[in-house]
Amino acid sequence: MPVVLLRHTPDPERVVALAARICYSARTVSELETELNDDEVGSLLSLLLRQGHTSPFEHASFTFGIEASRACLNQLTRHRIASYSQQSQRYVRADNLACVRPPSVSGNEAAQAIMDQSVEQARRTYNELLGLGIPKEDARYVLPVGAMSRLLATFNARSLHNLFGLRCCERAQWEIRDIAREMLSLVRGVAPRLFARAGSPCEVLGVCREGAMSCGKLARLRAAPNGGK
Amino acid sequence: MPVVLLRHTPDPERVVALAARICYSARTVSELETELNDDEVGSLLSLLLRQGHTSPFEHASFTFGIEASRACLNQLTRHRIASYSQQSQRYVRADNLACVRPPSVSGNEAAQAIMDQSVEQARRTYNELLGLGIPKEDARYVLPVGAMSRLLATFNARSLHNLFGLRCCERAQWEIRDIAREMLSLVRGVAPRLFARAGSPCEVLGVCREGAMSCGKLARLRAAPNGGK
Amino acid sequence: MPVVLLRHTPDPERVVALAARICYSARTVSELETELNDDEVGSLLSLLLRQGHTSPFEHASFTFGIEASRACLNQLTRHRIASYSQQSQRYVRADNLACVRPPSVSGNEAAQAIMDQSVEQARRTYNELLGLGIPKEDARYVLPVGAMSRLLATFNARSLHNLFGLRCCERAQWEIRDIAREMLSLVRGVAPRLFARAGSPCEVLGVCREGAMSCGKLARLRAAPNGGK
Amino acid sequence: MPVVLLRHTPDPERVVALAARICYSARTVSELETELNDDEVGSLLSLLLRQGHTSPFEHASFTFGIEASRACLNQLTRHRIASYSQQSQRYVRADNLACVRPPSVSGNEAAQAIMDQSVEQARRTYNELLGLGIPKEDARYVLPVGAMSRLLATFNARSLHNLFGLRCCERAQWEIRDIAREMLSLVRGVAPRLFARAGSPCEVLGVCREGAMSCGKLARLRAAPNGGK
Repeated sequence: MPVVLLRHTPDPERVVALAARICYSARTVSELETELNDDEVGSLLSLLLRQGHTSPFEHASFTFGIEASRACLNQLTRHRIASYSQQSQRYVRADNLACVRPPSVSGNEAAQAIMDQSVEQARRTYNELLGLGIPKEDARYVLPVGAMSRLLATFNARSLHNLFGLRCCERAQWEIRDIAREMLSLVRGVAPRLFARAGSPCEVLGVCREGAMSCGKLARLRAAPNGGK
Repeated sequence: MPVVLLRHTPDPERVVALAARICYSARTVSELETELNDDEVGSLLSLLLRQGHTSPFEHASFTFGIEASRACLNQLTRHRIASYSQQSQRYVRADNLACVRPPSVSGNEAAQAIMDQSVEQARRTYNELLGLGIPKEDARYVLPVGAMSRLLATFNARSLHNLFGLRCCERAQWEIRDIAREMLSLVRGVAPRLFARAGSPCEVLGVCREGAMSCGKLARLRAAPNGGK
Repeated sequence: MPVVLLRHTPDPERVVALAARICYSARTVSELETELNDDEVGSLLSLLLRQGHTSPFEHASFTFGIEASRACLNQLTRHRIASYSQQSQRYVRADNLACVRPPSVSGNEAAQAIMDQSVEQARRTYNELLGLGIPKEDARYVLPVGAMSRLLATFNARSLHNLFGLRCCERAQWEIRDIAREMLSLVRGVAPRLFARAGSPCEVLGVCREGAMSCGKLARLRAAPNGGK
Repeated sequence: MPVVLLRHTPDPERVVALAARICYSARTVSELETELNDDEVGSLLSLLLRQGHTSPFEHASFTFGIEASRACLNQLTRHRIASYSQQSQRYVRADNLACVRPPSVSGNEAAQAIMDQSVEQARRTYNELLGLGIPKEDARYVLPVGAMSRLLATFNARSLHNLFGLRCCERAQWEIRDIAREMLSLVRGVAPRLFARAGSPCEVLGVCREGAMSCGKLARLRAAPNGGK
């Protein structure tokens, strides 16, 4: 952790290519399975990515274990085309409460000191509330949104591409960006061609629609000697 | 607030009945619109509810404004067949931080005192972190999960029935149960027949699948003189 | 028919703007409802469209009655973020079987003659099968995929934008393209600013990802005196 | 074919149990993976099925290749929580048009003769239309809805349970019921405990909500010596 790839559809690139092929072929699935060679898989995936025809990507699923702050996991679980099973604060006692420490805080001694103190105070209050007979589900109202939590998340490859487009962008918050990049790195390890072009729109499509709120990365990519390629 | 019904499909019961009717009729939509009288609307809705054929319910949408704790809204937004726009802690400064106070706490003077103190401490820390130059999106890591937030939520009537079945149940947490019941009361105000049978399975279907974790309400309903009817 | 707009969220542009505003404001929904003036609604919608931030669009729903061939409606119902209630061939006897006639056929006298003959033969066979005691659900196996059908469809404005992007494109088949354009024209009638930029990517974004299969429209737009604007 | 199981999440029962466990445990995913023994997997799955808590089932995915009539595949693809890649009649020439023959027809010599004749006529017309320069996508309007087609479909185990509940029911049409039962048989081969209780509500829950349209199977199950168990 914080991110592990627990399971994935076996041979994910091949099943995606097969799905793409079946749409345009008179052959049976079994015939296609037999005939499709690995070079064709690569060409098909490359074409689908270029054209943005990513519906066949849905046939490949990836299941992750993720540890992050509640703040971050709340952002993640807003992606509705995915499945989640999250540790419950109603049922699991927050005995070893850990709070994620943002880089902006850990790089600032004064900030770190008061944050740690506040978290420690919340922890103490939580335990005292339990001691007073308050149920866990209510005592947790004092816990910080930065408290560490964990979940299992399953995404198909198309929904992952959408996630990477939004969350690898510099305008996403650092924590979910870190998570998204780690997820991308893990799926690239098992399906490099399926995720050859993946990430923020500036990197993948050479476009940025953030307007005045753009981070400026696209301009830097264009100014680079090789035009960002 | 905490719950207001902002918008809904006009004439929601009629459009649902029309959708049900079109499946089994040779007539055009316009003919059906003209012919369908209000008694038939009532009979159709009653039949659909009894048989659990609720796919036509999807044609009626309801948009709510909801204020509740982050803890509660995180539960709500796990319902994926719905649309949400939530106040952002990244962009909106938590100037008037209010923390929802659970009944178990407000009914316990000692608990209330330490909870208020902890929330006050979190608020102070948050402001100090901002003063130290920490961005809002990071300073919020110390805010309590009980902090009040708000969102707009749009559900169709089928997804609402699912929400009511899960969240009006006694085993749901009190806060989302309160929200769900208020939502049910509001939609019943504009579409009474569409939500005539809605709520926890014990009330609607006379069944409970919680097993050893059941709240016992079904047994009480059955023991009532009129058998819970 | 073939396309009518039956219902929509009242004041659809305003509810979308409200949803966008709530994310970045410390104000309550009621305060925002009161304050938001129509010019701000227009600016917000324009900004959301430009940046592609269309999640608030989901709060506005539109319900259509549509008549088209089964071939076309099967393409339409593949859009999964929408709700459908379709006339059933299992339950509704195809007494007045009409088959959609493609322009390529109606513009070719010989083609039209043999198509009409084939449809007439299918109709006769269907009735004969019913006469032999074959159930409607099985007799329909001989009906042509061009047979006229009808349904109710409810889309939110975000899903509509996706539909228009895919189905207003010249590479979509003529029948669903006609339907999509008619839907776009109808929603523009009630929410012009919500759908100001809508349609194929070449028209909306000035891009085409179809590669070698492009229809060439983007090139023509660019060659036009005003650069397609 | 007609149904093959092409891929599935490795170790599907274990990943579902793990997802269920993480919600109620303070342990990390890795610790849970190590500790969870196969008996516990079995008990957890049995409990989830009994209580209807099937959200963890979403982490297990199954990809099928299916051959069936267009009529049947149109019913299948109405299940929106799934992914499909279907052979296109716009791009694939229907050279070897086969039409599915319903049992009610194949058991009736006269019916079979006129159905075969009608299909043969449609095939001939299709080829003639192509010969006249009509594009495949338009010529297909004369093809019968019983024409054989094929697709790849990916469902998670929760969506499969929903499919089985609706389509294994006697009131579903014979063709999709056959397909659904074959799918159930295939997934039971690789995840018997995940699908131990699956199928029509009368068999799984001992209830039927079809009312006057019930097939009567529940009554028969109840009248059986062992009460249908």
